[in-house]
Amino acid sequence: MITALLALDIGGSTSRATLVDMAGNCLGQGKSRGGNPGSNPPDQAAAAIIAAAEAAVADAGVPLNIVVALLAMAGPNVNAARTRIEAAFRALGLSGPLVFSGDLNALLPSVTAATSGYCVVCGTGAGAVRVRDGEIERVADAAGWLLGDLGSGYWLGHQAAIAITAALEGRGPETALTKAILGALDIPLTGERAFDGRPLPLRLLIDAIYAMPPIELAKFAPLVIANRDDAVAAGLLAQSERYLLADFQQVFNPGMPGPVVLAGGIAAHLTGLPAAIAQVMRTAGHEPDIRLSGDGSVGAAVLALRHQGVTVDEAMLIAIAASVKARAAKAITPA
Amino acid sequence: MITALLALDIGGSTSRATLVDMAGNCLGQGKSRGGNPGSNPPDQAAAAIIAAAEAAVADAGVPLNIVVALLAMAGPNVNAARTRIEAAFRALGLSGPLVFSGDLNALLPSVTAATSGYCVVCGTGAGAVRVRDGEIERVADAAGWLLGDLGSGYWLGHQAAIAITAALEGRGPETALTKAILGALDIPLTGERAFDGRPLPLRLLIDAIYAMPPIELAKFAPLVIANRDDAVAAGLLAQSERYLLADFQQVFNPGMPGPVVLAGGIAAHLTGLPAAIAQVMRTAGHEPDIRLSGDGSVGAAVLALRHQGVTVDEAMLIAIAASVKARAAKAITPA
Repeated sequence: MITALLALDIGGSTSRATLVDMAGNCLGQGKSRGGNPGSNPPDQAAAAIIAAAEAAVADAGVPLNIVVALLAMAGPNVNAARTRIEAAFRALGLSGPLVFSGDLNALLPSVTAATSGYCVVCGTGAGAVRVRDGEIERVADAAGWLLGDLGSGYWLGHQAAIAITAALEGRGPETALTKAILGALDIPLTGERAFDGRPLPLRLLIDAIYAMPPIELAKFAPLVIANRDDAVAAGLLAQSERYLLADFQQVFNPGMPGPVVLAGGIAAHLTGLPAAIAQVMRTAGHEPDIRLSGDGSVGAAVLALRHQGVTVDEAMLIAIAASVKARAAKAITPA
Repeated sequence: MITALLALDIGGSTSRATLVDMAGNCLGQGKSRGGNPGSNPPDQAAAAIIAAAEAAVADAGVPLNIVVALLAMAGPNVNAARTRIEAAFRALGLSGPLVFSGDLNALLPSVTAATSGYCVVCGTGAGAVRVRDGEIERVADAAGWLLGDLGSGYWLGHQAAIAITAALEGRGPETALTKAILGALDIPLTGERAFDGRPLPLRLLIDAIYAMPPIELAKFAPLVIANRDDAVAAGLLAQSERYLLADFQQVFNPGMPGPVVLAGGIAAHLTGLPAAIAQVMRTAGHEPDIRLSGDGSVGAAVLALRHQGVTVDEAMLIAIAASVKARAAKAITPA
């Protein structure tokens, strides 16, 4: 029986399970729907996590002794479905502990063997963390869509929706975002008025937005990025960069050099951010080491290996990443 | 059998039903929970509306021929429970039509017989409307908590929550709102750190806020008002006034003098707003006529009377308001 570690990278829209041996070789992978209990109903989240793990075990295709299961996930309600997940994992061969870790913990080890450094995240949410010796020591923002996540994909999409509401009323400046967002919602941009005295496209926009879960406003962020020549869109992206830079400055300790990992689907589009972060680091006397994050599954696998006492250096990290990547094409995706 | 009109003033937290005769004399009143389908589940909203109407009919205590039922309410989903409401109203003696009207339509007739004028609303939501000949001709904002309502009670509460999140992290200025809001949530202001590297009070704040429906952030607005000596709170209230003034300017037509009705629980606390609106009107050559709104039940009763072709002048409006007020103490409140 092969000794294996089960590492889960659990996001709002996708859950990925990875089995590695003690040397970091990928034994199997599985994918499922989002399993983040913050943005999915707890039962559905647990089912997605279990489905991903089952798919990974099926992909491995050999009897396994799983000595640890590490779940890297966001959200405060990690314990909601713990009993159900643990029972399912025992049935899959888990003999050791079930370990919950924040999703932000998996970012640094996705791309560097350094156990101290910084992560600046701009995806659906946004914030920055300082990690020291593998533990998060300081957090800036990442407080979720209602309390913060300033500059995030949600924030960009929400601000864009507010801006086109104002533009349609004549309260705010005209913007290319109006046509882009109304188009995405299949709302024709006509000059008619609705029953309530509003422009008809605005009335239809209001109805469409309130029929969506608020977090889905993040889907307009790519339209802001695609329209970055527009003054309103450019202003939002510039503000997003300022928020993320402020988050980094909040967690940056001039006595601790880095590396700095940029993560999330929006981060790569904040084109001025790396230079601004580099400037902060140079001012503190450090040569900047700024990288885009790698595969979260690799980060979770490294966390699982470290939990078992394995020292993961740069060479081993590269080997793990290569092994996970080679296996990824074969991963089983349940319907 | 007495000919009666049923007028319903339906809010997010209270639904009030008023029966008047063709002369505007109040025949009965009933209260129930919130019946606004935008902020209550449709079934619960319909049940509240029906309960209020039943209580009003019971209060009247005589056989009635109800020739019209007029519902003044916010929210886009007015038709969701229409069939159920209509069936219940028929059982109560409704022989005429069921008429839906926006809640904003009932503001002007709550306090003036003028059928043209302006309303500036700042309660849980916020916005302004221009009314001409009893119809809303122009709307500024009032687009709901996700798309606008800038400066509203929700906006104040939400911005206050964002501000104390930043203050607890050291990203934003310290503010008296931190103690006030944490106190309201029974969260002790300690210096401990939570498991995730955040200050413990912030971690508990995040958990508490995401356990609430977002619209309930409006409950922090009174704390902003109570702490108006605090620089952060004062800044929010000043911004709220700017938003509401901009909304008024957006709907103001220099050729149409007024009156201007201020409505909603926050409006009376925006102490600089009346003078700012008065200045806009004087600049346009009009003597300002700015009033706080009256009882929404009176406004709804006037709308019902006008729907039946009755002309309501100032004398009749005063008589209706006095009659409704005299009856109010006797209204039946179901458990």
